Amino acid sequence: MLSGNILVTGADSGLGLEFVRQLSNVESIKRIFAGSVDLEKAEDLKKLSEQNHIIIPIELNVGNDSCITKSRERVESEIGNEGLALLINCAGICNKRRLDSDDWLVGRVDRDAYLDHYNINCVGTIMVTSAFLPLLRKTADLGRAIVLNISARCASSINALKKQYPKEAKQDVIAYRLSKASLNHFTRALAYFENSIISISMDPGWMNTNMGGPLAPFTADDSAEKLLKVVCNLKLNDSGRFMDRDGNDLEL
Amino acid sequence: MLSGNILVTGADSGLGLEFVRQLSNVESIKRIFAGSVDLEKAEDLKKLSEQNHIIIPIELNVGNDSCITKSRERVESEIGNEGLALLINCAGICNKRRLDSDDWLVGRVDRDAYLDHYNINCVGTIMVTSAFLPLLRKTADLGRAIVLNISARCASSINALKKQYPKEAKQDVIAYRLSKASLNHFTRALAYFENSIISISMDPGWMNTNMGGPLAPFTADDSAEKLLKVVCNLKLNDSGRFMDRDGNDLEL
Repeated sequence: MLSGNILVTGADSGLGLEFVRQLSNVESIKRIFAGSVDLEKAEDLKKLSEQNHIIIPIELNVGNDSCITKSRERVESEIGNEGLALLINCAGICNKRRLDSDDWLVGRVDRDAYLDHYNINCVGTIMVTSAFLPLLRKTADLGRAIVLNISARCASSINALKKQYPKEAKQDVIAYRLSKASLNHFTRALAYFENSIISISMDPGWMNTNMGGPLAPFTADDSAEKLLKVVCNLKLNDSGRFMDRDGNDLEL
Repeated sequence: MLSGNILVTGADSGLGLEFVRQLSNVESIKRIFAGSVDLEKAEDLKKLSEQNHIIIPIELNVGNDSCITKSRERVESEIGNEGLALLINCAGICNKRRLDSDDWLVGRVDRDAYLDHYNINCVGTIMVTSAFLPLLRKTADLGRAIVLNISARCASSINALKKQYPKEAKQDVIAYRLSKASLNHFTRALAYFENSIISISMDPGWMNTNMGGPLAPFTADDSAEKLLKVVCNLKLNDSGRFMDRDGNDLEL
């Protein structure tokens, strides 16, 4: 059972929006802070929040430190001395580029693409978690606090060693995979140092969102439901795990 | 046995300089290109290259794309149609900062520190490998070509899960660990896609270099010797491995 105050980043569309939609139906939840890069453009989120007032859209660009600070001040102004029970780090990017070469590495590497993915997918998550950690610790002192980092199965380094890369991987952005590999490491550091908070990484599966494209086999709706089911049942000794959307362990 | 042309990055001091020193005594090696961020300041490298003319110091800042391109042109101008037999990606940074807080995460996170470590330790290695890959492929077509990425045992994500983080880790830079975790993933992607090149990550151990500080138990001299012994005996099916300086597998 989930309760109290929740923050979801990347809540303007896709999986993040689905988390907000589904969590807003849980009676024991008090407030859902729905972080969005650009509130003006977050039409679906706006509509949803008008239907259900426990949803509070907030501006949250995980790539911008002062925006993160302001978002924490905003959350604190709403919750006062209450803590945060669940942080879902869902904001992320995966920019596929047209390739001007068939070569997987030579002639197609772009330093900024690597840095941008790392900045948003990994460092953005770290900065947000750092900013909201005091609020999570408050809840952990009383009961259960959870950090869910949205990762990806393709971040598993062991896949490559086992020759399990899909053929299409040549056309994927390696930058995305590396950023999620680091994110998984961060989840484990968090699990280690914050031993009263449950920190996990999960792969939501390939979804037919704006990021995943129309060929993906899963919907964000379905993935959010499965992930939340796993999250509801988490215990402290699950901390540090990397799982698929059904709660099965994935290899690093 | 190592032979042909070799490139070592970060060769101005520490482990990189030791690689150059020891490789320069191997008769079958033709040329050693010794990459340095600032050739003017690389006094030890300069002296070494004056004693042994197979050592060719070149300017190579792995954080600078045009410098990487120039370094490849410089290498090509020397070797003509010959390939590169070994690339040692040794250049890296580990900047420890004074902490203004006892808290491992709150109040001490610096986005630029994460990005800087990732840019040099991981993306720098990718950019250099991309630039020199055509030369490595040439050698791989004829015999054995190797990419050795200098990683670190502390990049193992499994350590955290097993509660094997040392207590001092709170004072370490998590940014360094994450950058090396991504580097390990890259090594595996390289092993997968470049199946005629041997790509490995190795932990040299904690060394009493400028980076490691005076408390470290190992010398760069000793580590370089052990790593080169492992490298000499590598076979194609070793590709993708992550090893310590004695050639034992490390967990991801």
